[in-house]
Amino acid sequence: VKQLNNLIKDIVNRITANLREPDMKVGEYVDGLIPHDSHSIYYAFYALTTEHPLSFQFTHSSLAGTYFLGKCEVELSVVYKSDIRGDELKKKGTVVKVNGADLELFQDERISIRHSFLVKTLVHNNSHDAENVEIFRILNTLSLHYANIHGTSVEGCYIAPFATVDLCTCRNCIVGDFSYVQAGDLSGERIEPGRIWIRQPGVFELNYQHDRNVLDKFISMDANKRPKGVFMDFCESHKAEFEPVYNAAQPEIALEIPDTSFVSHYSVVKGDCAVGENVLVAQRAFIDNSRLGDGSNAQENCYIINSNYEGMNVTAHGGKVINCDLGRKTFTGFNSFLHGTEGARVKVGRNCVIMPHTIIDAVEPIEIPDGSLVWGYIRTQEDLKNNTIALEEFSKRNSLSLGRMSFTGDAEAFVNGFAHRIEHILEENGAYFDGSPETAGHAQKTQEVSYNTVQAYMGGEYKGLCPTMLIKPLTH
Amino acid sequence: VKQLNNLIKDIVNRITANLREPDMKVGEYVDGLIPHDSHSIYYAFYALTTEHPLSFQFTHSSLAGTYFLGKCEVELSVVYKSDIRGDELKKKGTVVKVNGADLELFQDERISIRHSFLVKTLVHNNSHDAENVEIFRILNTLSLHYANIHGTSVEGCYIAPFATVDLCTCRNCIVGDFSYVQAGDLSGERIEPGRIWIRQPGVFELNYQHDRNVLDKFISMDANKRPKGVFMDFCESHKAEFEPVYNAAQPEIALEIPDTSFVSHYSVVKGDCAVGENVLVAQRAFIDNSRLGDGSNAQENCYIINSNYEGMNVTAHGGKVINCDLGRKTFTGFNSFLHGTEGARVKVGRNCVIMPHTIIDAVEPIEIPDGSLVWGYIRTQEDLKNNTIALEEFSKRNSLSLGRMSFTGDAEAFVNGFAHRIEHILEENGAYFDGSPETAGHAQKTQEVSYNTVQAYMGGEYKGLCPTMLIKPLTH
Repeated sequence: VKQLNNLIKDIVNRITANLREPDMKVGEYVDGLIPHDSHSIYYAFYALTTEHPLSFQFTHSSLAGTYFLGKCEVELSVVYKSDIRGDELKKKGTVVKVNGADLELFQDERISIRHSFLVKTLVHNNSHDAENVEIFRILNTLSLHYANIHGTSVEGCYIAPFATVDLCTCRNCIVGDFSYVQAGDLSGERIEPGRIWIRQPGVFELNYQHDRNVLDKFISMDANKRPKGVFMDFCESHKAEFEPVYNAAQPEIALEIPDTSFVSHYSVVKGDCAVGENVLVAQRAFIDNSRLGDGSNAQENCYIINSNYEGMNVTAHGGKVINCDLGRKTFTGFNSFLHGTEGARVKVGRNCVIMPHTIIDAVEPIEIPDGSLVWGYIRTQEDLKNNTIALEEFSKRNSLSLGRMSFTGDAEAFVNGFAHRIEHILEENGAYFDGSPETAGHAQKTQEVSYNTVQAYMGGEYKGLCPTMLIKPLTH
Repeated sequence: VKQLNNLIKDIVNRITANLREPDMKVGEYVDGLIPHDSHSIYYAFYALTTEHPLSFQFTHSSLAGTYFLGKCEVELSVVYKSDIRGDELKKKGTVVKVNGADLELFQDERISIRHSFLVKTLVHNNSHDAENVEIFRILNTLSLHYANIHGTSVEGCYIAPFATVDLCTCRNCIVGDFSYVQAGDLSGERIEPGRIWIRQPGVFELNYQHDRNVLDKFISMDANKRPKGVFMDFCESHKAEFEPVYNAAQPEIALEIPDTSFVSHYSVVKGDCAVGENVLVAQRAFIDNSRLGDGSNAQENCYIINSNYEGMNVTAHGGKVINCDLGRKTFTGFNSFLHGTEGARVKVGRNCVIMPHTIIDAVEPIEIPDGSLVWGYIRTQEDLKNNTIALEEFSKRNSLSLGRMSFTGDAEAFVNGFAHRIEHILEENGAYFDGSPETAGHAQKTQEVSYNTVQAYMGGEYKGLCPTMLIKPLTH
């Protein structure tokens, strides 16, 4: 593993140099993090479909357990059990509006990961980087367990476990555990753990700060710089159930699935489940004893257990929904943890928005009315007072301070923005598919998929590294 | 599958144009031969090891179920459930003596398959083509079920089921069912089914012709140009036992294997088996209730059932050994069928050479003495008279006519040539491994292997074809 060790050293040095935070000992987070044998045991894999542009280039990297889709380059990087999803990469000739200017792509957009170390990270594109509209760039960056990098170029960043960077620009940033940022240019920022920060400069700004004492129970770093807490325990406790899926060359799903829906071979579906029309269940999603109504989707790293989705329910990357009943078109944001129990189910009405990184840890039955915005930390029905508001009421406000949340600016723009985004997600996932090609989304376009696997060298100097690989589409 | 159909049409046309045999309707052998879904169901795979040079280039081809090792290019071809083994490719700078001249390789040798259609074919290199020392070429060629292409460039050829072309040059040839040729330049030849032809021009020539009526029972073509007979039935009857192996992402062998031996994850080993030191069991080998003594090897497509190998026993590609006891250093040639039964075991002494394409179909117990050369078709002890001779006695002869076999020339050269080749095979396979790197062979060098899988597109115009792939070794 000589070359792998050299590679890791090089990545650590580059991240350190870029972070410019002398107290951040990047090496401590990385050293020994991945057992050396893992590189040889876990295969990476990439999807071929007829509907997505395809191009993969892997150079001098370790890619264990990682899934790739679309157009991706990985160079001099370690990518471990991550999902690199390029299914919304923009095509050559697309015109994007960035900061008021129209930019035309002179080539297909691609995801580029260089000098970076990603662990159990979800990367999904749909980026808007003014400097690199053709490249969704992940450079000199360390991203840890269950972080989401969504539509955000990251350069010289440290992204802590369960953090989400969403539709912004991050350069030389430190993003703390379980913090969620969707706040434009964050260059040089240091985001505290548990901070939810949504900002559209000049339009609105929302802030929520999870109580550090509460947060520590769910996610924090132990003395050895390893993540611990309820979130990690939860994910770890379901790990073994994915083994049969990854041990099969062509895993099969034992469930009746409508032709308009797609359940990834690399998801776990167990117990008594039902899947409606136009449903998408992504790889690494976990569905147990649950019903997903028409148009619903379950994205990567999400868990849906003992729950019912009425329909058109989005579960964003890393959302966990346990013992819940969700009304039609209710949205669950990134890494939210909706944890009911048998005696204390969580019932959420229709058209609700559960903000990213919300924690509902019910100690009694909880019922959230239709059309609510939901955030923060909720344990009882009483807690809803300071952690929910009717979207309709909220959209009339230009400021709000409720519990640990504060908002200033144009709430209507905020609410419409969310509504618009949820519609976009539903459309992209094919929730509105009516048989016409224009309405097809991921659920339909991923139907005819096959997977190629990639393993590292098993011995010698290059142990743990993959060979140089270049995969291109066929042409006539 | 529009593009796949076009590709097949193009291959058929090119083979037809090269064969120059107007009565050979190549299309009839190929049309509908591979069920269209197979391309999507069966993955191809290639090996990464630390010991073999590596380079794969796949362009506009269908590669279902095929294994690749070493340096291989496949272009505009269909390769189905075949084994393309480049583990003896010569390295840049190697000097080879061809037709008396010393030729130095200016680059690493590679296997190149173009405009060809291979079905269940074993390709193994170690070629000596004067025109292309850097390229082991398979061009405009159709090769059918369980054919072996061994050290032989083939251009514009039709190679029938269970045929073997070994260490010769074949251009515009037709090689009939179960014929074995190792006879130098065969350009333009048409080899009858069941002919065994070993010739070293100016030194010796051996001919054996299987009785057509006997051969038909074992292998022939039905009215639809599909192979039928005992050999096909035998192979088909064991097909299902390979399914679990190919359905597992990382198949495991439930057998104690010494550190010096290698049993491929893609072989079947069942029943009560034992494997000694320095043993190699290749992918697609089938071992059931058998003991393989030290230094033995079981090559691709071989079957060893209810049998005992004393040690140093080579089973060449496609050899079938059922209810047999083989003495030390007894060699079983390509596609030989040694078929004993419980009540009629076949006992072969030490240091015997069972020639390629020998059929022993015992109706009574048969015992073959030490040091025999064995060929032809044997059913009883009596049959040994016309189908065996002591190697020592034979090596003194300069001609021999026995049953359907005839030999002229220097028998000592023939015997020594075989002995030399068997030693070479044992050495290459690591049978003599004593812990030193110089004695290591395939059994040791393949230990640290990993496999990457390749699937075709599952739908659309390119259904059944693989994307363009370029796999190169890592460099500093």
